[in-house]
Amino acid sequence: MGDNLVYKILKKHIVEGILNTGEPISIKIDKTLTQDSTGTMAYLQLEAMGIDRVKTKKSVAFIDHNMLQQGFENADDHKFIQTVASKYGVYFSKPGNGICHQIFLERFATPGDTLIGSDSHTPTAGGVGMLAMGAGGLDVALAMGGGAYNINTPKVVKVELKGKLNKMVAAKDVILEVLRICTVKGGVGKVFEYCGEGIKSLSVPERGTITNMGAELGATTSIFPSDERTLEFFKAQGREEDWIELKADKDAVYDEEIVIDLSDLKPLTAKPHSPDNVVSVEEAGKIKVDQVFIGSCTNSSYEDLMKVSKILKGNKVNKDVSLVIGPGSRQVMEMIARNGALADIISSGARILENSCGPCIGMGQAPGTNGISLRTVNRNFYGRSGTLSGQIYIVSPETAAVSAIKGYLTDPREMAVDIKVDMPEKFIIDDSMILAPAKANEEVEVVRGPNIKPFPINKQLENNIDGKVLIKVEDNITTDHIMPSNSKLLPFRSNIPYLSGFCFNTIDTEFPKRAKEFNGGFIVAGENYGQGSSREHAALAPLYLGVKAVIAKSFARIHKANLINNGIVPIEFKDPLDYEKLDLIDDLIIEDIKGSLDNGLLKIKNSTKNIEIEALVKLTSKEIDVIRAGGRLNYVKFNS
Amino acid sequence: MGDNLVYKILKKHIVEGILNTGEPISIKIDKTLTQDSTGTMAYLQLEAMGIDRVKTKKSVAFIDHNMLQQGFENADDHKFIQTVASKYGVYFSKPGNGICHQIFLERFATPGDTLIGSDSHTPTAGGVGMLAMGAGGLDVALAMGGGAYNINTPKVVKVELKGKLNKMVAAKDVILEVLRICTVKGGVGKVFEYCGEGIKSLSVPERGTITNMGAELGATTSIFPSDERTLEFFKAQGREEDWIELKADKDAVYDEEIVIDLSDLKPLTAKPHSPDNVVSVEEAGKIKVDQVFIGSCTNSSYEDLMKVSKILKGNKVNKDVSLVIGPGSRQVMEMIARNGALADIISSGARILENSCGPCIGMGQAPGTNGISLRTVNRNFYGRSGTLSGQIYIVSPETAAVSAIKGYLTDPREMAVDIKVDMPEKFIIDDSMILAPAKANEEVEVVRGPNIKPFPINKQLENNIDGKVLIKVEDNITTDHIMPSNSKLLPFRSNIPYLSGFCFNTIDTEFPKRAKEFNGGFIVAGENYGQGSSREHAALAPLYLGVKAVIAKSFARIHKANLINNGIVPIEFKDPLDYEKLDLIDDLIIEDIKGSLDNGLLKIKNSTKNIEIEALVKLTSKEIDVIRAGGRLNYVKFNS
Repeated sequence: MGDNLVYKILKKHIVEGILNTGEPISIKIDKTLTQDSTGTMAYLQLEAMGIDRVKTKKSVAFIDHNMLQQGFENADDHKFIQTVASKYGVYFSKPGNGICHQIFLERFATPGDTLIGSDSHTPTAGGVGMLAMGAGGLDVALAMGGGAYNINTPKVVKVELKGKLNKMVAAKDVILEVLRICTVKGGVGKVFEYCGEGIKSLSVPERGTITNMGAELGATTSIFPSDERTLEFFKAQGREEDWIELKADKDAVYDEEIVIDLSDLKPLTAKPHSPDNVVSVEEAGKIKVDQVFIGSCTNSSYEDLMKVSKILKGNKVNKDVSLVIGPGSRQVMEMIARNGALADIISSGARILENSCGPCIGMGQAPGTNGISLRTVNRNFYGRSGTLSGQIYIVSPETAAVSAIKGYLTDPREMAVDIKVDMPEKFIIDDSMILAPAKANEEVEVVRGPNIKPFPINKQLENNIDGKVLIKVEDNITTDHIMPSNSKLLPFRSNIPYLSGFCFNTIDTEFPKRAKEFNGGFIVAGENYGQGSSREHAALAPLYLGVKAVIAKSFARIHKANLINNGIVPIEFKDPLDYEKLDLIDDLIIEDIKGSLDNGLLKIKNSTKNIEIEALVKLTSKEIDVIRAGGRLNYVKFNS
Repeated sequence: MGDNLVYKILKKHIVEGILNTGEPISIKIDKTLTQDSTGTMAYLQLEAMGIDRVKTKKSVAFIDHNMLQQGFENADDHKFIQTVASKYGVYFSKPGNGICHQIFLERFATPGDTLIGSDSHTPTAGGVGMLAMGAGGLDVALAMGGGAYNINTPKVVKVELKGKLNKMVAAKDVILEVLRICTVKGGVGKVFEYCGEGIKSLSVPERGTITNMGAELGATTSIFPSDERTLEFFKAQGREEDWIELKADKDAVYDEEIVIDLSDLKPLTAKPHSPDNVVSVEEAGKIKVDQVFIGSCTNSSYEDLMKVSKILKGNKVNKDVSLVIGPGSRQVMEMIARNGALADIISSGARILENSCGPCIGMGQAPGTNGISLRTVNRNFYGRSGTLSGQIYIVSPETAAVSAIKGYLTDPREMAVDIKVDMPEKFIIDDSMILAPAKANEEVEVVRGPNIKPFPINKQLENNIDGKVLIKVEDNITTDHIMPSNSKLLPFRSNIPYLSGFCFNTIDTEFPKRAKEFNGGFIVAGENYGQGSSREHAALAPLYLGVKAVIAKSFARIHKANLINNGIVPIEFKDPLDYEKLDLIDDLIIEDIKGSLDNGLLKIKNSTKNIEIEALVKLTSKEIDVIRAGGRLNYVKFNS
């Protein structure tokens, strides 16, 4: 029996464990990427590891999140990342060069290699057959230091694409269809591997849209084979030598299978407030639109914006609509500036934003009160746009552009215009905004602004831990609940002391004060605690506030890893009903926790209620060592 | 004896008073403009006046300040302005269309007419022979309602330009030279009228740069004749019919005279933190630069950006510099996108911002800690960039572009490149982002977001006023000190209760608390109090906090008018040395202030120090009535 694409790559990279669905494995990481909102922390951690120089094939630091720069913090962080990257051998993509995932696809992605990035949309590079995963900053730092990355062997889902997309139906509609079928929880523990006749009609940027937004499935990642279409892209990027052919064996086996006939698809939209709240545009109806945003790492490629320009050309944006467009990279921007497409876009009345994440992460262009905003982004979570009452609909660039002209949500098939875009024979290739690192023996001064504060490091695990229940939360708490991300807080991602003052801010503003007052303690939570983004700050801020353990019904994968990495014990209720037995401010004691870790069972005394419950600790032996050491950095230090 | 240009226009517009230097006159206003950060307030005031429709030849509402849109507030304010403008017969320039002064020059300015705008750089339109003045929002609202505008007959300063600018020396260097000669206080009560052989070599955009930044002199306005060069511009804008020839009589008389030989000028720079802190670039030396910003209403024309593109073409921005460029208008943006110049700019590694005020008003792109930023803006006041430790140098676009390549402050004459730019025969003319108002009988619903709060209105003046000295400040306090304008506060310009919590924030964070605690009182200040922007908020916030009077050595023109409009008494020390006799928290009493207004002399008792000083109130009889009524709106209400 043959291998699927995922197993082929995993087999070449496994350094520990056995490929067996659900079993822990460690894999070698070839490349890494960071962006600036998670990157400052990753590089502080890299510094703490005491290595001289990164050991990956290539590591790249991008600046694309904190681009508004309302105070000194952002420019300081950019300078810190620029200098620390140079010192440790990391390439640096200057602010203005564009969005990490778009640029990585253009200039760095390589089929068959592994990539982890401190951003949950790192799977974009799966569009060229790279095994690309989002991870916490510390994991990325450890990979830069040469360490392996630990995951559980994923289930591999075969997504067979048949037929061909109809006119004005887009790659975005493909991934929206997958989300409609599988939901935002449907991908947990899985990799989505695309194949079938249908993929031949999809260009690399289209594939990138699909793998990018595969993150919304909760999947470990998504991947396409590397084929003739991939080669076409690599040739146009002047990177033919980076290309290899890569596909699953004909008799490859998969854990699950989905079949989608592309010719059946219609323009779709994900209604507020979840990417899986998908209906056809037709079905959603003629909604009056206030704002349209075309951009983000999902849909800001040359191909996307060329299509948009063809739709907008000769038309004007509706008088009641603000159309904002954020190109994905300087390459895209220069291409469309050189060929006249940008002029056509400007002529339509669109507002042109910098090449950056922008509105997708709430970094500007928040809609008005109750504003309806169509966006080509990947996430329409409640509040993410910067306006709590904003109504965000996820759509394709085609639907976005046509609707901006009409003034209401419109099925783009209503507009008969030829938007076929050929892959350019050669993209404009100019890496002058990607700074090579200093040579190994060169002196580099790392510039550290006053907003860059030391991050908290845990102590060795004590044998008995006690404290109060500092907060009790429900099911499906996201990392956005734990450590909110918005344009007011994002500039402080390198300042945990400040940031921790906003920990759990959207649901309990008193938490930080309480945690300090009681000198730390416990978080009690329901199912799926810590779902959503990979941000490590959702572990670092609680650590700073003295949280010793989280007792939950269950954990989301990356957040659990981040807790372990920071020495916070992830404890699961043995009986979920025991959740009712722990309340806010209760005094808890766990004795001999060090000893209990090995057999995975421990006892929690609630001295306020004078009861005792049993609980589980589901950790691999390596994870137990990490927890005992007080986190991954301590573990590395003690073991090197 | 003949008339100068200023008198010619004033004579045609005077409706009350006599043209006699220093004497109050009222003049008819032909056109008005507002921008969004002052506009919300102006339109709230217009609504409060109860008129049906504006009575000017043309009034235009621009959106150019609050373009980052981090919360619902901005989009709400834009929608409010769009709908209220439509209702009252005001043209609306959509967000993305560009900076008010640039667009006004392109599409609306007319020689010989009068203009007031709720922005201190309204004099830009003086570049085509319009008498254009900055004013408080209430004055603009009153003018929209058909009311005359009150000023004191200005002194007219003849600025004779001889010779021709050398290569790489710019219009910006002309106005920097005038600032060097006259200082930021030198223009108070004056209009600067440019003439002489030298003006023939200056295009309309160059003249606009000079009149724009004439605001920094504290001048009432600045003006150029309307000549062949002006006609050339109007033809290219397809507005030949708006042009008339306009110049001073040959035997015109002036109050003062300055002669500048353009051929003597070198590239200049205004060092931190004042626009008159001028030295030559050579003299300033080779300062390492962190950031360069080219844009703002002073230097973002087609001509400016074409010159910049010629300098940048084929070069790359220094690796340690962030070069950000904000085109002035959609016309500029489309022109340079169509002709390839934008592509050359992008290729150099510049970051392209939206067509808006942007970094000039601290709306993003704050430099890093101690960051050195070269900017083509008009103001480098302390803190205005968004970074208190930022060091802002004002320079020409030429100096900015060359320095961005070199990485340090560089005399642009070091770079031999031909940057001659001809006026295009025809600009791209497309007013589709300027929405015409609804017809007079059409129903328009004014949309009002939750951030739009009622503004404070004063009460009738009491006969005795007393209270504590709430703050004591030095000379040259700007409206930026009084009511800081930055990206965190600008979104709240329609919310005085919130905004007032940040009054004097950059120099005394305790002021709002203290003002509330003591139930209002007095501000004590030095010379030229309230220089800088026209923002009425610098009067409205103190009013909200209970400030009854400001006692200063002298006042800047627009701010004094704003104080009067809001019923806050502007009092001047009779003997400037008495400034030393009033200290923070001193208890002051002014008895029979109502009676004292007429003779202009009053007594201030300092009961803390048990002394008494004499002080002046320099008000016209109409202003006295306004002060007695408790501000202009009350006055209008009582007198209609």
